[in-house]
Amino acid sequence: MTFPVIGMVGGGQLARMTHEAGIPLGIGFKLLSGAPRDSAAQVVRDVVVGDHRDLDTLRDFARGCDVITFDHEHVPTEHLRALQAEGVVVRPGPDALVHAQDKGVMRARLTEIGVPCPRHRVVTDPADAARFAAEIGGRPIVLKTVRGGYDGKGVWVVRSEEEAADPFRAGVPVLAEEKVDFVRELAANVVRSPHGQAVAYPVVESVQVNGVCDTVIAPAPDLSPELSAHAQEMALTIAKELDVVGHLAVELFETGDGRVLVNELAMRPHNSGHWTQDGAVTSQFANHLRAVLDLPLGDPRPRAPWTVMVNVLGGDFPDMYQGYPHCMARDPRLKIHMYGKDVKPGRKVGHVTTYGDDLADVRERAAHAAAYLRGTITE
Amino acid sequence: MTFPVIGMVGGGQLARMTHEAGIPLGIGFKLLSGAPRDSAAQVVRDVVVGDHRDLDTLRDFARGCDVITFDHEHVPTEHLRALQAEGVVVRPGPDALVHAQDKGVMRARLTEIGVPCPRHRVVTDPADAARFAAEIGGRPIVLKTVRGGYDGKGVWVVRSEEEAADPFRAGVPVLAEEKVDFVRELAANVVRSPHGQAVAYPVVESVQVNGVCDTVIAPAPDLSPELSAHAQEMALTIAKELDVVGHLAVELFETGDGRVLVNELAMRPHNSGHWTQDGAVTSQFANHLRAVLDLPLGDPRPRAPWTVMVNVLGGDFPDMYQGYPHCMARDPRLKIHMYGKDVKPGRKVGHVTTYGDDLADVRERAAHAAAYLRGTITE
Repeated sequence: MTFPVIGMVGGGQLARMTHEAGIPLGIGFKLLSGAPRDSAAQVVRDVVVGDHRDLDTLRDFARGCDVITFDHEHVPTEHLRALQAEGVVVRPGPDALVHAQDKGVMRARLTEIGVPCPRHRVVTDPADAARFAAEIGGRPIVLKTVRGGYDGKGVWVVRSEEEAADPFRAGVPVLAEEKVDFVRELAANVVRSPHGQAVAYPVVESVQVNGVCDTVIAPAPDLSPELSAHAQEMALTIAKELDVVGHLAVELFETGDGRVLVNELAMRPHNSGHWTQDGAVTSQFANHLRAVLDLPLGDPRPRAPWTVMVNVLGGDFPDMYQGYPHCMARDPRLKIHMYGKDVKPGRKVGHVTTYGDDLADVRERAAHAAAYLRGTITE
Repeated sequence: MTFPVIGMVGGGQLARMTHEAGIPLGIGFKLLSGAPRDSAAQVVRDVVVGDHRDLDTLRDFARGCDVITFDHEHVPTEHLRALQAEGVVVRPGPDALVHAQDKGVMRARLTEIGVPCPRHRVVTDPADAARFAAEIGGRPIVLKTVRGGYDGKGVWVVRSEEEAADPFRAGVPVLAEEKVDFVRELAANVVRSPHGQAVAYPVVESVQVNGVCDTVIAPAPDLSPELSAHAQEMALTIAKELDVVGHLAVELFETGDGRVLVNELAMRPHNSGHWTQDGAVTSQFANHLRAVLDLPLGDPRPRAPWTVMVNVLGGDFPDMYQGYPHCMARDPRLKIHMYGKDVKPGRKVGHVTTYGDDLADVRERAAHAAAYLRGTITE
């Protein structure tokens, strides 16, 4: 048997759902998890508990794996380069992944290849941030640590000199960006193989609440075919130019004058692609696996006119299972995806998807279920 | 957290795929597997290796499980009754499951509730089998051991006095049945909850080769709406009258004069329902879990006009992964489901599904992929 063994670094829900998608393929799946009760570690047979920041741990983990891939971007780039130099197959490779790890590197490279981004530059201190603000016509501006941020963490909207101090405290380089006056956020998700095949999912709308993804609508409503094709081509260009292998999420701002600007990149399955589990012919997780195994990619097309995903965040209601009977009885098409995580306020502990022909109805059903599970509504 | 723990007895592919379907629910999943490398044991975190015929093993396994369910019918009925008497929640329960374990009990009960079956009676020896043949108008007749058969094993088509000897050698009671002159085989699959909710999947056609399921077509082509509804109602009646909990597969013969007769029952996810993984709103595995957890059932409707499943049997070609690139490139909608089993000639090691609008095209794509993986064709 030559069925390969995938090693996935990181025990979060993305690894959990990637394992789920890998079971039908008959492949081996090893997990490097930070703790034995992490989301993915609860459902995977072959779990190594260890620290992804330790090179020896990574080396040991990689033995017996045919390819290493990731649930997150937090493995130090230099460790990935070391593994690669030792012959470990790392997908996406460090030269690609660094663009999802370091926002400064990402902005420089995207600008170089002509991909539209918000105006930006790395700034050295609050005074330099003030100069950047003056250059682009004034505050507010956005300051971001170039590494370590996610879900709104590591990002500050700065409206005054005083507010500009916080981002510099971590000792990480800080990127200043214009605060784009967008009409909405989109995501263009693509998957690319080592042999160069790529597929593009429909462009989706991503609705953020307090900097965290709340709702994803596939496809993005009322998006012009031209802008949709443009966004897909941009994502395919980024995947090719950065030599991405696997799933690439390109988070975009849509502006009032009909442009799209790149906000963030992620080189792994991404929250904006969860709808594909129940809404596309091939899920982002299945296609990520196919890509890192250099197998032909699956059809990315939607299976329903509209699919909506709503994240389930932790609220004050610790026992989400109690909501299952109501939600399942109310919507027999609803799919609940829970991550096995303890409920903490604001924490992403699951998501729901549903689909149908009528967008308003689909949105209502998905939003209702997520709110009910969270405990925000009780009927 | 009150997320329940399911305990599944049996480490085969049905448990493997049930675990896959359970991951999104966030439930616990424990497996009692005969060996550590069994199909399901490769992908489940919490595996107990032990003998399902041993009551103490079952007792130990059941501790910490909220409900026990099954990958197969081979747990002795008396052990299930003992567990149930001790307070273990067993679904389906032994009083239902015995009808899938013992063909004699099944035939007697179905006849009692008015469900049409082939003419039959338990026979004591070859001479008694000869009398049965005379009673129904002559051979061929079918002899079956009442327990232990599957995939054509334990079933003999008897054309002569001499051929009637074999079935009696095992020392198991033997059921004699008329050999039904059917035009094709169908399956009516339903799922039922403890609280009495039930859903019916579309009736499918099951094409057998050498007594083993080869192809399943959903829905069954050219089936009259009346006969389809009749078959679904029959399956729902059986589920209700026998107090089945979980997935019930009712294998049927369709006769030339427009009747359906029950061939076999299975009270677990079933090969004739594998198409639902990719072809129905809710898969048989997800609905089996919902049922045994007494959750509302999911929508059983198809998502495409035609879905076809073809089993992948072991051939002379041991390395099926080598076929993946060809099959995936040829049909981007194809789903391969492999079970992690070593290839042995004739053994079910996986299945493929695909779907679309044109039945001939869908059948060709699925059959091609299965034959290519098996090595029967090379281009």
